[in-house]
Amino acid sequence: MPSPVKILGIPGSLRRESYNRRLLEAAQTMLPADTTMELASLEGIPVFNQDLEAHLPPKVVEFKSQIRAADAILFGVPEYNYGVAGPLKNAIDWASRPYTDNSWKEKPVAAVSASIGLLGGSRAVYQLRQSFVFLGMHPINLPEVFVTFAPQKFDAQGRFTDPDGRKYLESLLTTLVDWTRRLRGH
Amino acid sequence: MPSPVKILGIPGSLRRESYNRRLLEAAQTMLPADTTMELASLEGIPVFNQDLEAHLPPKVVEFKSQIRAADAILFGVPEYNYGVAGPLKNAIDWASRPYTDNSWKEKPVAAVSASIGLLGGSRAVYQLRQSFVFLGMHPINLPEVFVTFAPQKFDAQGRFTDPDGRKYLESLLTTLVDWTRRLRGH
Amino acid sequence: MPSPVKILGIPGSLRRESYNRRLLEAAQTMLPADTTMELASLEGIPVFNQDLEAHLPPKVVEFKSQIRAADAILFGVPEYNYGVAGPLKNAIDWASRPYTDNSWKEKPVAAVSASIGLLGGSRAVYQLRQSFVFLGMHPINLPEVFVTFAPQKFDAQGRFTDPDGRKYLESLLTTLVDWTRRLRGH
Amino acid sequence: MPSPVKILGIPGSLRRESYNRRLLEAAQTMLPADTTMELASLEGIPVFNQDLEAHLPPKVVEFKSQIRAADAILFGVPEYNYGVAGPLKNAIDWASRPYTDNSWKEKPVAAVSASIGLLGGSRAVYQLRQSFVFLGMHPINLPEVFVTFAPQKFDAQGRFTDPDGRKYLESLLTTLVDWTRRLRGH
Repeated sequence: MPSPVKILGIPGSLRRESYNRRLLEAAQTMLPADTTMELASLEGIPVFNQDLEAHLPPKVVEFKSQIRAADAILFGVPEYNYGVAGPLKNAIDWASRPYTDNSWKEKPVAAVSASIGLLGGSRAVYQLRQSFVFLGMHPINLPEVFVTFAPQKFDAQGRFTDPDGRKYLESLLTTLVDWTRRLRGH
Repeated sequence: MPSPVKILGIPGSLRRESYNRRLLEAAQTMLPADTTMELASLEGIPVFNQDLEAHLPPKVVEFKSQIRAADAILFGVPEYNYGVAGPLKNAIDWASRPYTDNSWKEKPVAAVSASIGLLGGSRAVYQLRQSFVFLGMHPINLPEVFVTFAPQKFDAQGRFTDPDGRKYLESLLTTLVDWTRRLRGH
Repeated sequence: MPSPVKILGIPGSLRRESYNRRLLEAAQTMLPADTTMELASLEGIPVFNQDLEAHLPPKVVEFKSQIRAADAILFGVPEYNYGVAGPLKNAIDWASRPYTDNSWKEKPVAAVSASIGLLGGSRAVYQLRQSFVFLGMHPINLPEVFVTFAPQKFDAQGRFTDPDGRKYLESLLTTLVDWTRRLRGH
Repeated sequence: MPSPVKILGIPGSLRRESYNRRLLEAAQTMLPADTTMELASLEGIPVFNQDLEAHLPPKVVEFKSQIRAADAILFGVPEYNYGVAGPLKNAIDWASRPYTDNSWKEKPVAAVSASIGLLGGSRAVYQLRQSFVFLGMHPINLPEVFVTFAPQKFDAQGRFTDPDGRKYLESLLTTLVDWTRRLRGH
């Protein structure tokens, strides 16, 4: 019997109608067997200041414990200005500190993105992959999920309705769960 | 007679002893003729939330007017987790919004970085260059200034003392000012 | 009267039916006024070996003189394995050598890409932009032209028929020509 | 007893005095227990042309079988013009083709680099990491080995003599071998 896997989904936007949050909500409805997924919120995480890292803000402490409790991470990555959205990078930086207590370390990870444009947030995801190297995270490779022209792929209720996209997302979740089990050896 | 150039220096860290701020302070002491440079501060800029962009926070309004008043931009880029520091990316994202009032547009720009490690923040700078494409900024190419092993390159008073680094920084400033004049045609 | 601009188009593939060559051929039919564009060929350029750079192969000598004679460069960039196609990077490396005779230096440049996949070769173009920094080239920013799902955008005769893509390509050419004139000051 | 691991070292340069080849030769002298490492050569691999992939050149066939026989890959990555050296990318592209017979797939991998400059070839390595995503390779994260100012780190006989660099290289090899065993489950 496969061991249970707990995924933490992290939508990288504070926007109420964020496509990236909706994409992770869609993922919650198509999880593989023995898998659960909760969503974190970046609400209330302040702007990072290294001078404060000896006394982390309460919301950062909570965020870090959510990460630590997870077996795997799934980021929903907004792309702003061809890079990782500032608020998401900011939250990632907090949770990596102090250096001796980097919460991301050794976590299996995948990153998906939805955007209104042609390239579906891919530029931000590739930049984030570079951060995974230092953070010590283990990303899956393929499939990738980049939702292009997002307004056409979600319905009025915010449900992710694109048939191909849903198929890739389901496959990505299976790959992430398999990868998580492979890395922990069971 | 060359036309005056006003540079806005933007240190990307809130840390009080930030090497990147000190690097920009060093730049202020070696400006070419007819050039001035003031430093912005990211202090007080909140975490970006697109829902709020119709009513920008006062600190963001101020930051945007500083940018608009400048002829050229010089970023001091902290590298966190092999990427652009969250707080800096966050401030850049704010000042790019709303889309129809992107303050960065058409600005000549250079980016320098100091870090405690081997690569001097270069990874963050290359990611930032990708953002310049969408922001519509015009970066100089060479020289680049990456201060590696920063603690060895600043003295107890926080002065940037590395002879080679100072030489490159001075050359970068000249290049940025020449580039600014070339782009505006005088 | 605007000064004439000579563009060198460089298709980065040796494949006979290359989409990237066809894209550049389409560009040749929509040039702005007082602009000409010829296409280079990478055929016959051997694999780079630095030991041979004191005596460049004849085909490299010819390629370098084509570049030197051009006012601006337009790359058609095939993406192989999420990076710049080996043959194109190889040709770029040759023409940059020896270091004291880098043919790319100071050239205004744009890069377009067509690919069979979702992201239209954009990953390769962003990597190439990083090379422009060291090469001393001056890329335009927007618009970008990434032809996604290329087989649907060219007809049986190899003509680029996508209406939106053609509009962006025409706009890119105008931007490149304007940029070239702006940089040379007339 | 740990299972044996066969590493294929791939120096990405044709230059006779290549620092990257010497770096891999140094690696051969500091292998962990039960590990062997042979070096491939790119000599004789022609410029890639997709039209020829149905009948791969003999040298490519040989290269692909070396890769297939290896348990893990160690690249020595020359950086040319802030990117992956053309000859190396060209060889990687060949060995990935045809798509249904991508030799790199599922290989654990690490990439090291030596360069004459400040940043030790790191820019090329980060670009190569992006290719690993599509190639389906599994890179280690840390440690990284970037040999900066290479002429100072090798002796007259071409031996890699930098004490810190040697320590990191040895640690990288151990990490790669452990990662290889972890991924195959024994």
